[in-house]
Amino acid sequence: MVLATMAFCYFLGDWDVDVWVREMQHLDSSLDLRIWPEVGRVEDIDYALAWKPPPGELKKFPNLKAIFSLGAGVDHVYNDTDLPENVPIVRVVDPNLTMRMSEYVVLHVLWHHRRQRIYDHFQSEGKWRDLSQPAASETRVGVMGLGELGIDAALKLKTMGFRVAGWSQSRKNIDGIDSFRGRGELKAFLNRTDILVCLLPLTDGTRGLLNGAVFRDLAKDGAGDGPVLINAGRGKLQNEQDILTALENGDLYAATLDVFEEEPLPSSSPLWSHPRVTITPHNAAVSDPRAINAYILRQIKRHRAGEKLDNVIDRAKGY
Amino acid sequence: MVLATMAFCYFLGDWDVDVWVREMQHLDSSLDLRIWPEVGRVEDIDYALAWKPPPGELKKFPNLKAIFSLGAGVDHVYNDTDLPENVPIVRVVDPNLTMRMSEYVVLHVLWHHRRQRIYDHFQSEGKWRDLSQPAASETRVGVMGLGELGIDAALKLKTMGFRVAGWSQSRKNIDGIDSFRGRGELKAFLNRTDILVCLLPLTDGTRGLLNGAVFRDLAKDGAGDGPVLINAGRGKLQNEQDILTALENGDLYAATLDVFEEEPLPSSSPLWSHPRVTITPHNAAVSDPRAINAYILRQIKRHRAGEKLDNVIDRAKGY
Repeated sequence: MVLATMAFCYFLGDWDVDVWVREMQHLDSSLDLRIWPEVGRVEDIDYALAWKPPPGELKKFPNLKAIFSLGAGVDHVYNDTDLPENVPIVRVVDPNLTMRMSEYVVLHVLWHHRRQRIYDHFQSEGKWRDLSQPAASETRVGVMGLGELGIDAALKLKTMGFRVAGWSQSRKNIDGIDSFRGRGELKAFLNRTDILVCLLPLTDGTRGLLNGAVFRDLAKDGAGDGPVLINAGRGKLQNEQDILTALENGDLYAATLDVFEEEPLPSSSPLWSHPRVTITPHNAAVSDPRAINAYILRQIKRHRAGEKLDNVIDRAKGY
Repeated sequence: MVLATMAFCYFLGDWDVDVWVREMQHLDSSLDLRIWPEVGRVEDIDYALAWKPPPGELKKFPNLKAIFSLGAGVDHVYNDTDLPENVPIVRVVDPNLTMRMSEYVVLHVLWHHRRQRIYDHFQSEGKWRDLSQPAASETRVGVMGLGELGIDAALKLKTMGFRVAGWSQSRKNIDGIDSFRGRGELKAFLNRTDILVCLLPLTDGTRGLLNGAVFRDLAKDGAGDGPVLINAGRGKLQNEQDILTALENGDLYAATLDVFEEEPLPSSSPLWSHPRVTITPHNAAVSDPRAINAYILRQIKRHRAGEKLDNVIDRAKGY
């Protein structure tokens, strides 16, 4: 039994760790599973799954071979500011996560595009009234971040008929999707965008990017109600005061936000009751324990058989 | 100029006829366009575009060569109970119409699937709370009617990850879509369906089909909140009293209705204020004058060149 001598440690913070352990035991009952802080002998630990590990804890395992980072981004794992240097950090790629994120993105893009907020309001007034309705082919969606999640969302939006462009660090060659790259092409990307979808990772280069200057550059000549922001990336990408200001001065018509500078969103935030803001509780794409554990197990087996780990993050780039 | 000697007559009821005429003149300024009831010499009229033509009016044109029927179905043209017998009726196929209908269907399926009604409610209470969320692959959507519109919607739902089946008169062979046919397989189709999408045409065989017995057969073991009805077909397919009863007894959890037994929906209808009903004003797929006029013009030109008309309806079947 290859895995019998191996110990695996969970750092799951406020996640429901029992579900994760149960699912993993279901997949392989021979695994020696430890839940931080009850780790036992630190020498035993070969692999760890981490969500916001406390600083310095992972470094205590002298035989650690890889750290699996939970969630779509890897910023959570950097909560540990003293990570062991030569241990690879593996991004967890959960196909379910990608599908869920695209569900969320397509839902909220269509909802704004089809002016459903206004129809809901008409219904509340008992009013039967039709509005002019642009076709999806007249609505320009811009996706910031063309990683695994962004590409899937962009292609599904394209299938729905939207005009889709993406903005990323490097140029992407994706059929039917216009590619813009880097700060130099940000303005051109925003100028052609009616609905801005943000799926960027949080890095030093992206922190606070969704600010007043960006909203000002969004297209103001669209066929719909006005520029829309959908942020399902990370809360610290956005300046919430700037979002509120833009909603007032017309640089934004509406917003759907799944993430916030502080989570849970404080009850004092005026975003809660803004008539043109939709709030969801950071649930656009929630990790599925069974799928992720199966992915980790596959990677561990291959790694122990001498094969390379997939999706190892580049620490210099931060993703 | 082939079309110079031809007159084309619009029967547009309560549609905005000026837009239609302007778009057609823009496409071909040589056309002799007449708007009912100002038709001039009845012998001049070669072709007509009709939406609910008054009974007996089309029969007055002795040289009529084809009737183009506006809207996705053809039931409107049967408003004329005394149609000329040997004149072909052509179903208008508007690619934009198909795209728009799929926008509507995918939007409202995702909206129910993602439990957005509950999140909207949480937001109104300032409550940050996550719910368990089935993956699209756990949610079974059933599409009634696999014509042009139904197939496109079914394929897009499949792309979003849903388990999709269709129900139609004849068996369909569509990759990834389970096909059920006829009354004999209706119960099996409903038993595996969490979200029922109706895009059926209105015929003698489908009138009143969406009734209590159908709602009772919908799956009660789904991963989501409960059975959902989305009707974007025709209002007379549904029994609204049965919808209200099913919403009370749990045979339906929620409904999105674009069409109604009587339109506009009377202000006295309890559907307007039902907390789990979404109402839209028969705008799921609104015809685009430019695209439809271009389609008609292409068909007329081919017909006058001796070619066959496309999409001629079979009067016996009624679609």
